[in-house]
Amino acid sequence: MAKKKTSPVLGKIKNIATDVYSRIKKKKLPELKMPLRALSNVKYDPKDGFFELMGKMKERTLTASTIKTFAQTLRMMGLSKELIEQDDIASKREAYYISKNWAEAGFKEQPDSDAVMDDIEAMMMVNREQIGFIPEEKGGEIAGKLIVVDKDRDTGKELKIDCTKFGSGAYSIPISVEELKFETNATFILAIETAGMFQRLVKHNYWKKANCILVSMGGVPTRACRRFIRRLSDAKKLPVYVFTDGDPYGFGSIYRTLKVGSGNAAHINEFFCVPQAKFIGITPQDIVDYKLPSHPLKDVDLKKIKDLIKNDPFIQHHKEWQKALKQMYQMKVRAEQQALAKHGLNFVISDYLPKKLKDDKSWLP
Amino acid sequence: MAKKKTSPVLGKIKNIATDVYSRIKKKKLPELKMPLRALSNVKYDPKDGFFELMGKMKERTLTASTIKTFAQTLRMMGLSKELIEQDDIASKREAYYISKNWAEAGFKEQPDSDAVMDDIEAMMMVNREQIGFIPEEKGGEIAGKLIVVDKDRDTGKELKIDCTKFGSGAYSIPISVEELKFETNATFILAIETAGMFQRLVKHNYWKKANCILVSMGGVPTRACRRFIRRLSDAKKLPVYVFTDGDPYGFGSIYRTLKVGSGNAAHINEFFCVPQAKFIGITPQDIVDYKLPSHPLKDVDLKKIKDLIKNDPFIQHHKEWQKALKQMYQMKVRAEQQALAKHGLNFVISDYLPKKLKDDKSWLP
Repeated sequence: MAKKKTSPVLGKIKNIATDVYSRIKKKKLPELKMPLRALSNVKYDPKDGFFELMGKMKERTLTASTIKTFAQTLRMMGLSKELIEQDDIASKREAYYISKNWAEAGFKEQPDSDAVMDDIEAMMMVNREQIGFIPEEKGGEIAGKLIVVDKDRDTGKELKIDCTKFGSGAYSIPISVEELKFETNATFILAIETAGMFQRLVKHNYWKKANCILVSMGGVPTRACRRFIRRLSDAKKLPVYVFTDGDPYGFGSIYRTLKVGSGNAAHINEFFCVPQAKFIGITPQDIVDYKLPSHPLKDVDLKKIKDLIKNDPFIQHHKEWQKALKQMYQMKVRAEQQALAKHGLNFVISDYLPKKLKDDKSWLP
Repeated sequence: MAKKKTSPVLGKIKNIATDVYSRIKKKKLPELKMPLRALSNVKYDPKDGFFELMGKMKERTLTASTIKTFAQTLRMMGLSKELIEQDDIASKREAYYISKNWAEAGFKEQPDSDAVMDDIEAMMMVNREQIGFIPEEKGGEIAGKLIVVDKDRDTGKELKIDCTKFGSGAYSIPISVEELKFETNATFILAIETAGMFQRLVKHNYWKKANCILVSMGGVPTRACRRFIRRLSDAKKLPVYVFTDGDPYGFGSIYRTLKVGSGNAAHINEFFCVPQAKFIGITPQDIVDYKLPSHPLKDVDLKKIKDLIKNDPFIQHHKEWQKALKQMYQMKVRAEQQALAKHGLNFVISDYLPKKLKDDKSWLP
């Protein structure tokens, strides 16, 4: 079966456990420290490019009222150690069910075990994929000039997965991408909102003409998809261009989450953000310039735009985004990326993308 | 660029167009005939294994009030002809935007163009992927003993995609699977509800031990995923086993849709159903036998069970399903497939699946 593995996280887990153990031996109350995960402990540093934690910590000292959570945290750390050593994985849901064998330390409900897992993630200052815990959902597909280097679990041999050889299909990003390596001579990564647009670019081998790597996000990208783009871009120094619909959801949810992360997961944004991303999707100005068929904004869209301008530290930092959002608010319309089909099904390949990519003044930051 | 293609559908389109043309030349009113798409025109034949259309037809004769829809139908047929000839594709959304150039025949809203596309699909008696129209959404992933044979669009050369060589990743099913071919010596197809469970089986190379093909459905399977399973199973005479959660959604939505199709799309069930599928997911009896951790059924679950027993022709036909649903209604609990983790993370691989697969009395039809 699988070989025993080592990892820097194993050392951290052992240190924390040893500390708890030795405090108990000295008849002192053991304690666990972890960063406070809350918006009040978050700042946006444009230099680093993501929402990051400030230094506030919370402590969990062993008392009569915390004893159960304390025990659960230690058991969960133990499970993580096992997973890393055995090169296995557990989803949040599976970890919850495993706890049913922890007698008094079993979790009553999954949200409780999820919260403890988040604590450990923050305590270790790594994303939970690195401690063996995987999300429930998958998502994200790749086609184009990329070889993904994975390994066969049974033989340990390298597997080279050539993403130019999938025809109309694609490579589906695994739930955990921490161990993947990459080979490529592409010049950029293009992350696309909809599966339909991705399929069009794949069908016409767009990646060959443009010498790039295509990523289908399928809406707001999953953790695995964001982490994959980040690791690939870092490893190969590739710029990342993001192509979404021209609407508040594409700007504020899909692009913003990919680029700087989200507010309520600040302790892991460091691993999941893609600060090097640039927006080449449909802008309000594109709707005018290309005379795109559009749809009226609903009240909820208008509210979202107002919220973004007023409350989002990322938008507040970038004048260009403020201007674009205000323009859309006045135009009161949105346009989908497929609206380019008005000028011919493959106008996006022959005109829109080449023109956008050449003119960095047409991008948004 | 792409070669001109021929297809039996092209002949049909030309025949219909020629008929319309010659009637007009003879100063007769042209008409279009298509099957009525409604539950009143559907039956469940257990021998064929899917909801199918009875013979009722609707006719669209050219009159003052139908002239716009009539013209739109002909334009949409024309677009389909172009797509097939040029080996291109258009999503529903793209087809809608293309129509913006049809002057008076342009669609005001996408639901209108979707309905005309459904009419043409029914008129041709094929699924719309065969006439160049693709759905917006993607879904479905493959790992295991399968080689998918696709072709490179530019060179026309065969591409062999070996699904044993994806490591922790997977092959993502394209939106249209009509042209794919298959090579395999696997003995069955295992279709799995959740991405988390799929990733576990992939991580441990379960397909190698069991000599099978793993499919991740990620909830209710998309059209492409259902069609892929159906074509693969037909071509290679492979049994299909379906592994879902033990709840009304897993039984009545995921499994039932995969196996017999859905009521409101009866004209295409023939292409999208998988009548050979068998249920090897969590049954109410499994919850008892394996002492699985469970969750109480909500009112909406109880209502869904009642509906299935009372109104679903497929459930009504199978006593075993009626019995299982009644048992769950009495137990008032459901269990997720990950609940097996209570007995160890890999209990599903070492015990549950081997035992289930050996004992066809533990299946549901």
